[in-house]
Amino acid sequence: MGESVETLVATIGQQLVARGEFVAVAESAAGGRISDLLTDRAGCSAWYAGGAVVYSAASKRDMTGLSLEELREHGAVSAETALSLAEGASRRFAAAWGIGETGVAGPQTGRRSSKPAGLAYVAVAGPEGIRRWVEVNTGLDSRAENKQQFAIAALRLLAEELSKEP
Amino acid sequence: MGESVETLVATIGQQLVARGEFVAVAESAAGGRISDLLTDRAGCSAWYAGGAVVYSAASKRDMTGLSLEELREHGAVSAETALSLAEGASRRFAAAWGIGETGVAGPQTGRRSSKPAGLAYVAVAGPEGIRRWVEVNTGLDSRAENKQQFAIAALRLLAEELSKEP
Repeated sequence: MGESVETLVATIGQQLVARGEFVAVAESAAGGRISDLLTDRAGCSAWYAGGAVVYSAASKRDMTGLSLEELREHGAVSAETALSLAEGASRRFAAAWGIGETGVAGPQTGRRSSKPAGLAYVAVAGPEGIRRWVEVNTGLDSRAENKQQFAIAALRLLAEELSKEP
Repeated sequence: MGESVETLVATIGQQLVARGEFVAVAESAAGGRISDLLTDRAGCSAWYAGGAVVYSAASKRDMTGLSLEELREHGAVSAETALSLAEGASRRFAAAWGIGETGVAGPQTGRRSSKPAGLAYVAVAGPEGIRRWVEVNTGLDSRAENKQQFAIAALRLLAEELSKEP
C-alpha cells in the first residue's frame, strides 16, 4: 500500500488498456483531484474518458439521476450517493468503469454538521454489476490533505477491482 | 502577474461572492487542474458550481453542443472550441461564468500533430455576452508544467474579467 500515486495510476492505465476499457469520474469533495491525478499520466486518453466535479446539489442530481429529495434522504455524503455518482459517471461518459466520491474536505466550520471533515465515501462501478464502496475517515482537518487522501482511496479501490480476474 | 495561485483563487472567490455569482469549468488538457485549484479554497461552494473534464470527443460534443464535424472543422484545440466549452460549462452548471480550456499537455509523441505540446486556448464566458479567449504557448514539453500553466492562464483570464466593473 506504500506505492507512489504515479505507480498506482500507471497500474490502473495498464490494466484498462489490457482490457480495452475506459474509466470516468464523478467527484465532489476531492474537487477535481481524482481526474487531475489520472491525467498526469501521458497517454491517458487511451483509457480515461472524462470526469465531472459535482459541487452544487443540482449537479449531483444531474450526474446521479437521484432527485434532490433522495439526495437529502441518503445524505449527499453517503455510500448510496458515492455509488450513484460512480454509476452516473460510467453512464454519462460511456465508460466501462466509473469512480464516485463524496465527502467533507474541511476545514471544519463553526456550523454544526453531522459529518466531520475528513469523512468521505468512494465507490467504483464496473462491468458485470461490480459495485463497491469504502468509507474513508482521515481524521484530518486539512483540506489539502483530505482532497489528496480521498483521491488516493478512490484510485486504490479501482486498482483493486481491476486486479481481479476479468 | 507574480501573485501566487492561492492569491489568484482568493481574489476570484471574493469577486464572485461580491457579485453573488458562480463559476463552472470545462477543461480538457488541464485534466481537472482548474477545478482542483479552485476547490483548494475553503468555502468555494459559495461561488464554484462544478466542472467537467472533457477528454473524449463525445464528451466535448456533449459539453459544447458542437457536432463532431464542427469540432473536427475548428480543431479540438482551437479558440472556437475553448469558447464553446466556456459557454457549455456556464450552461450545464447554471453558472453566470464559464471557463473553457483545450490544449496539448504533451509530452510530444512521435506522431506528427499539427499542434505542439504546450499550446492551449483558454476562454471565459460571462454575463452580458462577455466572451474572451487567449492563446497560451508555454514552449514546454513537460506535461505536469503545461497542465499547471494552462490552468493558471485560465484563472488569470477569469480574474481579469471579474476585475472590470460589473
